[in-house]
Amino acid sequence: MTFNYQSGELQVRGHKISDIAAEYGTPVIIYDETYMTGMMQKYHSVLKRHNLPYSVSYASKAFSSVQMIKLLEEQKMELDVVSIGELYTALAAGFPVEDIHFHGNNKTPEELQYALQHGVRFFIIDGLDEIELIDSLADDDVNVLIRINPSVEVNTHDYISTGQEDSKFGLSLSNGAAKRAIDNINASKYLHFKGIHYHLGSQLDDSAPFINAVTNVYSWLDEHNIDIEILNMGGGYGVRYTEEDVRFPIEEGFNAIIGHLKEVVSASGRELPHVMIEPGRSIAAEAAITVYEVGTIKDIPGVAKYVSIDGGMSDHIRTPLYGAEYEVVPVKDANEDADEVSTHVVGKLCESGDIIGKNKMLPGNLQRGDLLAVKTTGAYHYSMASNYNQMRKPAVVFVGENGVRQVIKRQSLEQLIENDVR
Amino acid sequence: MTFNYQSGELQVRGHKISDIAAEYGTPVIIYDETYMTGMMQKYHSVLKRHNLPYSVSYASKAFSSVQMIKLLEEQKMELDVVSIGELYTALAAGFPVEDIHFHGNNKTPEELQYALQHGVRFFIIDGLDEIELIDSLADDDVNVLIRINPSVEVNTHDYISTGQEDSKFGLSLSNGAAKRAIDNINASKYLHFKGIHYHLGSQLDDSAPFINAVTNVYSWLDEHNIDIEILNMGGGYGVRYTEEDVRFPIEEGFNAIIGHLKEVVSASGRELPHVMIEPGRSIAAEAAITVYEVGTIKDIPGVAKYVSIDGGMSDHIRTPLYGAEYEVVPVKDANEDADEVSTHVVGKLCESGDIIGKNKMLPGNLQRGDLLAVKTTGAYHYSMASNYNQMRKPAVVFVGENGVRQVIKRQSLEQLIENDVR
Repeated sequence: MTFNYQSGELQVRGHKISDIAAEYGTPVIIYDETYMTGMMQKYHSVLKRHNLPYSVSYASKAFSSVQMIKLLEEQKMELDVVSIGELYTALAAGFPVEDIHFHGNNKTPEELQYALQHGVRFFIIDGLDEIELIDSLADDDVNVLIRINPSVEVNTHDYISTGQEDSKFGLSLSNGAAKRAIDNINASKYLHFKGIHYHLGSQLDDSAPFINAVTNVYSWLDEHNIDIEILNMGGGYGVRYTEEDVRFPIEEGFNAIIGHLKEVVSASGRELPHVMIEPGRSIAAEAAITVYEVGTIKDIPGVAKYVSIDGGMSDHIRTPLYGAEYEVVPVKDANEDADEVSTHVVGKLCESGDIIGKNKMLPGNLQRGDLLAVKTTGAYHYSMASNYNQMRKPAVVFVGENGVRQVIKRQSLEQLIENDVR
Repeated sequence: MTFNYQSGELQVRGHKISDIAAEYGTPVIIYDETYMTGMMQKYHSVLKRHNLPYSVSYASKAFSSVQMIKLLEEQKMELDVVSIGELYTALAAGFPVEDIHFHGNNKTPEELQYALQHGVRFFIIDGLDEIELIDSLADDDVNVLIRINPSVEVNTHDYISTGQEDSKFGLSLSNGAAKRAIDNINASKYLHFKGIHYHLGSQLDDSAPFINAVTNVYSWLDEHNIDIEILNMGGGYGVRYTEEDVRFPIEEGFNAIIGHLKEVVSASGRELPHVMIEPGRSIAAEAAITVYEVGTIKDIPGVAKYVSIDGGMSDHIRTPLYGAEYEVVPVKDANEDADEVSTHVVGKLCESGDIIGKNKMLPGNLQRGDLLAVKTTGAYHYSMASNYNQMRKPAVVFVGENGVRQVIKRQSLEQLIENDVR
């Protein structure tokens, strides 16, 4: 584990969490950079082993920032963006435009124009009329994948389940939309059909849906006699928020998926495609903790104990939004001998649903000023942060080989109203 | 209704919504300023009629911005803030500090210090140790209410139900915490006990819970022989998101509540307190619509029709978060003769849960470039907006007696990374 206790103090790679919190204030999101580069390298090494052309494209939406993008480039990652804002961030960080892929169920004309002007030449087509739209805006070759729905059942939260027929995303294999898209691409002036993309869902914990998708997709490709150069299997590789969660087994999982792909491809007399995968959460989530300071504590006899922290749903929406569970731990475990008591950890926002976690076992002698760490907050925390209750977005810090460095500064009060007309 | 059709065009006070969208772009949140001032005046006139000291304090968290705060001041409203950010916004708008009340279950030492330094002298005590904390930071008199939980049952969404014993908010009447708070306040150096605050929940549609709260609170006050100058009944006055919702009946509701208060007060031989109420949503929510442009449309035969708009859960989180229902209407009703078809209106963010509304009846001939308006988005939309998917926060426009004016500018791409270390 990357965040663990030494002499009763939570630390990361030899740096005390309490020291980092003292320097940058709270709430602060602290990333273990080495964990992230390790995950990137793991995806590379696992895929490299299978001797096929591949790329690993990070999904910006999990957590995007200039320094994060630079880290991705250093690790030879490619990049998925889903908006002009994510693209702007990538370009500002100097990310190579040829390694950027533009996704999204509704890329606006403004976004497409901006992307084309800035040299993006790789789009994932998500709807039929996008083909015409891109063709009308382009003046040079554009490579495209089509996002299809392979109709694979997955076992995950409704909100993060994708890849089924009834979805705002993608094109149906069964109703002819996907085939029509390819025909239209082939008939277009600038678009070149390169292959297939799908995204099956999030927090997937085994390879079965990926294997089924390969089967379904190739059976469809065979049926329609369609060649592809690229097969983009999407992301969704599960992480461990709590002990209940099972991480996607990257090594065995891809052994099984690529093994199956090789069989299927060989059975249909094809060449191996370039395999793209799109991890986001699995690189960033477990790499970070959010550190908060404890404020008001209410021990309501016979009812519950509430511990309020100095952040909340403005920087931690996944619990109110999905009912997501997290581990919460004290930063100083000096109270090792204290009895643990069931504690509701709640935010400071004026809303009953502003809950970080219910019934967390925490030291009974926790007090105002103590620090708490919420684990596995590296993905979909900063990126989903709001200014609800005029809360400022937290600071973000990377801890890496060269020590501790701030990568995103805490918002200022002035910034809260910088767009307000005075 | 403030937003309605004239010659097949959605308009507000004579201004075409399509013209406003053309000028300020989409997504844009358009407020009818006159609706808001009308609601503020309504609260004043209804309370004035009862011949008691009163104040109407707007809950900033519903929607706060410099121009909104100025409007509130013009209408002799007082103001609730729940964070240093909301206080900063109010002060930047020149709001009189003596009319600002500081709420919150976990006011941080930084926030309290800032508030005291800037002259805030009215706090709503939410926990026992806040009393010591404020007393230690103050160097002059401070008026306080205590937030109590009157244990009144209300019928609303779990997330927006408050006022029960098992809550992060307030002090219990039954377990002695509220009484202890008053004793501690009386024993403090700078704090002066002024009265009682409670908040029963949100989206309440009748006066029953308010009446029950008055009964419970005065029975407790009588029991403990406690005098109060101020009774702050909180907010929660329901609005109409869809036809299913019942608006809180302001006139009859307060007739009943104040009538009951007068009886209870007189029965216990007391003077009428200064009555404070704290509307937020009921002033702002129905005053605004969010206007989006239609992009990709997917009609999946036998499954569903999906219409994507150029915003989503980054500016409209209440549907993913609470399952809240909204009315969605076309801005140009030129297609009046078109058949309406059941349509899923979805956002452009890369998440299946990014849904504005399912099964909305919309013209079957809707097409790319058409505008859609989501109604009743004046509260908890801009204030809860995020930059998820690096989406920029929308522009906000007020339409008032002097025409159309922008009150918040759309975020720029540069602002998305202004805190990123390069």
